[in-house]
Amino acid sequence: MSKTESLVYVALGGAGEIGMNMYLYGYGAEKKRRWIMVDAGVAFPDMDSSPGVDLITADPEFITSKAHALDAIFITHAHEDHVGAIGRLFPQLKAPIYAREFTAEIARGKMEEAGQDPSEVVTVGAWPEQVEVGPFKVGFLPISHSVPESSAMIIDSPAGRVFHTGDWKRDPDPQVGEPFDPDAIAEVSKDGILALVCDSTNVFSKNPGRSEAELVGPVTELLKNQPGLVVATTFASNVARLRTLALAGQAAGRSIAVIGRAMHKMIGTARKTGLLTDFPDMIDINDAAQLPAENVLVLASGSQGEGRAASAQLSRGGYGKLSLKDGDTFLFSSKVIPGNEVAVARIENALAMQGVDVVGEEGGLYHVSGHANRPDLEEMHRLTKPQFVIPMHGEYRHLREHAKLAEQGGFSAVVAPNGTMIDLSGNQPKVAEMIDTGRRYVDGSVIYGAMDGIVRDRIRMAIRGFLVVNIVLDEKNRLVGDAWVEARGLFTEVGGVEAGLQSELEEVITRDLAKAKAKVRADDEAVEKLVKQTAINKANRLIGKKPEVTVMINRLED
Amino acid sequence: MSKTESLVYVALGGAGEIGMNMYLYGYGAEKKRRWIMVDAGVAFPDMDSSPGVDLITADPEFITSKAHALDAIFITHAHEDHVGAIGRLFPQLKAPIYAREFTAEIARGKMEEAGQDPSEVVTVGAWPEQVEVGPFKVGFLPISHSVPESSAMIIDSPAGRVFHTGDWKRDPDPQVGEPFDPDAIAEVSKDGILALVCDSTNVFSKNPGRSEAELVGPVTELLKNQPGLVVATTFASNVARLRTLALAGQAAGRSIAVIGRAMHKMIGTARKTGLLTDFPDMIDINDAAQLPAENVLVLASGSQGEGRAASAQLSRGGYGKLSLKDGDTFLFSSKVIPGNEVAVARIENALAMQGVDVVGEEGGLYHVSGHANRPDLEEMHRLTKPQFVIPMHGEYRHLREHAKLAEQGGFSAVVAPNGTMIDLSGNQPKVAEMIDTGRRYVDGSVIYGAMDGIVRDRIRMAIRGFLVVNIVLDEKNRLVGDAWVEARGLFTEVGGVEAGLQSELEEVITRDLAKAKAKVRADDEAVEKLVKQTAINKANRLIGKKPEVTVMINRLED
Repeated sequence: MSKTESLVYVALGGAGEIGMNMYLYGYGAEKKRRWIMVDAGVAFPDMDSSPGVDLITADPEFITSKAHALDAIFITHAHEDHVGAIGRLFPQLKAPIYAREFTAEIARGKMEEAGQDPSEVVTVGAWPEQVEVGPFKVGFLPISHSVPESSAMIIDSPAGRVFHTGDWKRDPDPQVGEPFDPDAIAEVSKDGILALVCDSTNVFSKNPGRSEAELVGPVTELLKNQPGLVVATTFASNVARLRTLALAGQAAGRSIAVIGRAMHKMIGTARKTGLLTDFPDMIDINDAAQLPAENVLVLASGSQGEGRAASAQLSRGGYGKLSLKDGDTFLFSSKVIPGNEVAVARIENALAMQGVDVVGEEGGLYHVSGHANRPDLEEMHRLTKPQFVIPMHGEYRHLREHAKLAEQGGFSAVVAPNGTMIDLSGNQPKVAEMIDTGRRYVDGSVIYGAMDGIVRDRIRMAIRGFLVVNIVLDEKNRLVGDAWVEARGLFTEVGGVEAGLQSELEEVITRDLAKAKAKVRADDEAVEKLVKQTAINKANRLIGKKPEVTVMINRLED
Repeated sequence: MSKTESLVYVALGGAGEIGMNMYLYGYGAEKKRRWIMVDAGVAFPDMDSSPGVDLITADPEFITSKAHALDAIFITHAHEDHVGAIGRLFPQLKAPIYAREFTAEIARGKMEEAGQDPSEVVTVGAWPEQVEVGPFKVGFLPISHSVPESSAMIIDSPAGRVFHTGDWKRDPDPQVGEPFDPDAIAEVSKDGILALVCDSTNVFSKNPGRSEAELVGPVTELLKNQPGLVVATTFASNVARLRTLALAGQAAGRSIAVIGRAMHKMIGTARKTGLLTDFPDMIDINDAAQLPAENVLVLASGSQGEGRAASAQLSRGGYGKLSLKDGDTFLFSSKVIPGNEVAVARIENALAMQGVDVVGEEGGLYHVSGHANRPDLEEMHRLTKPQFVIPMHGEYRHLREHAKLAEQGGFSAVVAPNGTMIDLSGNQPKVAEMIDTGRRYVDGSVIYGAMDGIVRDRIRMAIRGFLVVNIVLDEKNRLVGDAWVEARGLFTEVGGVEAGLQSELEEVITRDLAKAKAKVRADDEAVEKLVKQTAINKANRLIGKKPEVTVMINRLED
């Protein structure tokens, strides 16, 4: 245990997956360390691993267990995987939240949704403004990404300066918000960067990233040439893209209607914070339905195939009074996040059934990524000249590849997945400690751990089906009536009888219990074990399946 | 109802999804029609829509309900989505099965696995050999694809000739098996093709398809240049690819080990049927573990990230005595089927953690598709010059796009998704009838319908969690003891108490039952309704969740 003051970095989430970003920086002697957090985001559940869950967050236990050691939370930008957990986790974190204006507005919304006080979110100006918290001074350096006011965190400590990129891309002309500014990056880096903690999402993309500005021409051309109504979808938070689409629509003589709560929220926030001054007036979707189709552009949320979002609703028949028809066009100005392919294809098929033409990425004509590609990462290494690079925001394979890339460029690099605490104070990064990390599931109004067994039980019921066996035993441990079996999620029409499975199981359980020794019947655990075994074996013989079983033993008293 | 003799086509599966192919051709007056089936394949389940299911097949009810009307089943090739259901469905279909030698061997395996007589599968030679069944004469015209002996069905009837492509690609040099032969296709088409029923999988791929032969150089180069052990995965059935990989390994001085049951089966069958004469000798995986790493190539099944397959096992630590280490290479000589992205990435991350370099498609250097691209489809239209094109083997969007493509080339085309029966006899295709189609789930030892509610219940349990409420009522309808609640897949630590949820629910259910009128308590349905409502409302207040509820009412008799 070191008593020397040192600067440490550890990811609680985001370095091992793309999502649920949560990074900590600590300074001080180990026992007295003060901490700041960068980002508190969510990841999204899926049926494979987290059925029934609403949202996933990183487990903040490591920091929440240290009372009052957390001095501040900084939010780099307004994407869900960076800001989405702030409201739900705030009661545990209890530290002031700092963000730039647009991000702060979104963060306040998250606080309100979770019943927390939105005034805990403090608006901070861009670099060179700095927030002093404990031993840290932290500034928001504007950096281009696919949402306004994205910022790198410039984190100063007595041990030196860390450049935490947040999500970024190299875009000299992002249309909305600040361009990528190599001079500004070089300037903050000129006195030396201890560590570059850097986005790794697109490390496998070999060509330089492309600018949002490259889309304006093709999108305008496309919208002018479509004979019918056009619906365009993208990420709701991509304000620049929404503007590109809307202005192109306007140029094509189309009125603009926007559907989807998330999209309205983002456009509203961007207007309120002065980031979106030239967005055309919007019309109501029901009014749009009355106009000639070729005069309408609809911007719709749900680019990832989300079943309840506006795009999915449109594909299934309509939204409000608007429905699509033969000759209309649907533009996905977005990429499909891995795992969402089937959901997106479902929408494409539903649209095809209505005669709607689907236009996708078309080799990047209508979409550019918001993340830095391989050559852009190399440029960032060169601009900041860090003592070492710590890849973040990626699955393990991205982190490893990014570290290799940095090393190829002559930089030291360290792969530090979630829980690997790195001491940044020496000349070389070293592992200070391995801490426990994990996932928390937000589900209804409660939050619980991914390893608590709740979701494991759901998956088991979904895969195996479920049996409940009800037994009544009298005061002499004799079975009263027969065993009673209820089945869920199981094929029960055994032997051509509708509840044949249940009957067969009831018969064999009743028989086995009758045959069992009195000592067994007197013992709840022994009864449960016997009944489970009998039920599972018989079900397996009848339907080739070993269900989950719950046994309920009712004992009658004198 | 027409009494005229006519030729009809209908897809029971495969025209509306990629998978579970099952096509029917019928000839005769409507009441006396004789039928043949082409293919009987499976689709694969997923947690989103079919948790706990083993395999999915098309519902053959339309044909099995017509006793003895099915004269024969023809299998185009040995892929699971064409042959996989033959064993399980045979007891209902009960018609002789015809296939070429390699396919027949695989089909016999499917029959044996399902406890059926493999001798029901009859081996047929290639075109010009024909099988005469009822009013049909059917021949197997060799066509290139990614599994040996793939064939188009040349279906002659009194109404004319149908060209049913099966799965195909345009490959002049497929390495194993017969090349794409435009002259042979033109020859069988020269007297006129009534309908071209054609694979649509790759209709959105704009460039001409590439030959298997193009991979030989790059793969050999790659295997020569890797410093450590190389593992390569691909589809087990892609015998040509396995040969390409093995010969490249041999050229690079590597011994070849093969792991995975499916891969051994395919290699064995290809050797047995004389299709694979130059495949190098294989060594045991445990012997391979003793060799210098750079002298070993392992061919492993599981290219789609299947959790139990050899590739996944290797990524998690090892297979037999072999484990991977820093400097080894893992080659995915395959594409990721939509929906499998996350599973494949899981393997890539696990490999990255072991320091293993992953090589993927690399823009087609190490993988080519087995399906015909857009220009290849146009070539097929031109070669066969059909009266009309019926797109098959695709989701709806593929079928629609393929029909548009055919029409652009001057051909008539009709989109006929599953259940749309097309009369092929006239000058123009017309819809003869719409029939019910659906999916059957193979689950353990039983098969049931997708709409039977079994899987719906599983999904509900997985999303909502599950409560069982046990009630004992005496002969006077009085509650004996308290209600008893068991919870599965639910957060239960309410109020800091381990089973707080159950306690709270028991209390409120007991109270509500006590307050209920005697008439209510006397009626099982009324009790159930009351208990469910109380349980759901209370759970929603406590944990923000509305679980599935089963109520078990035990009534004591005098």
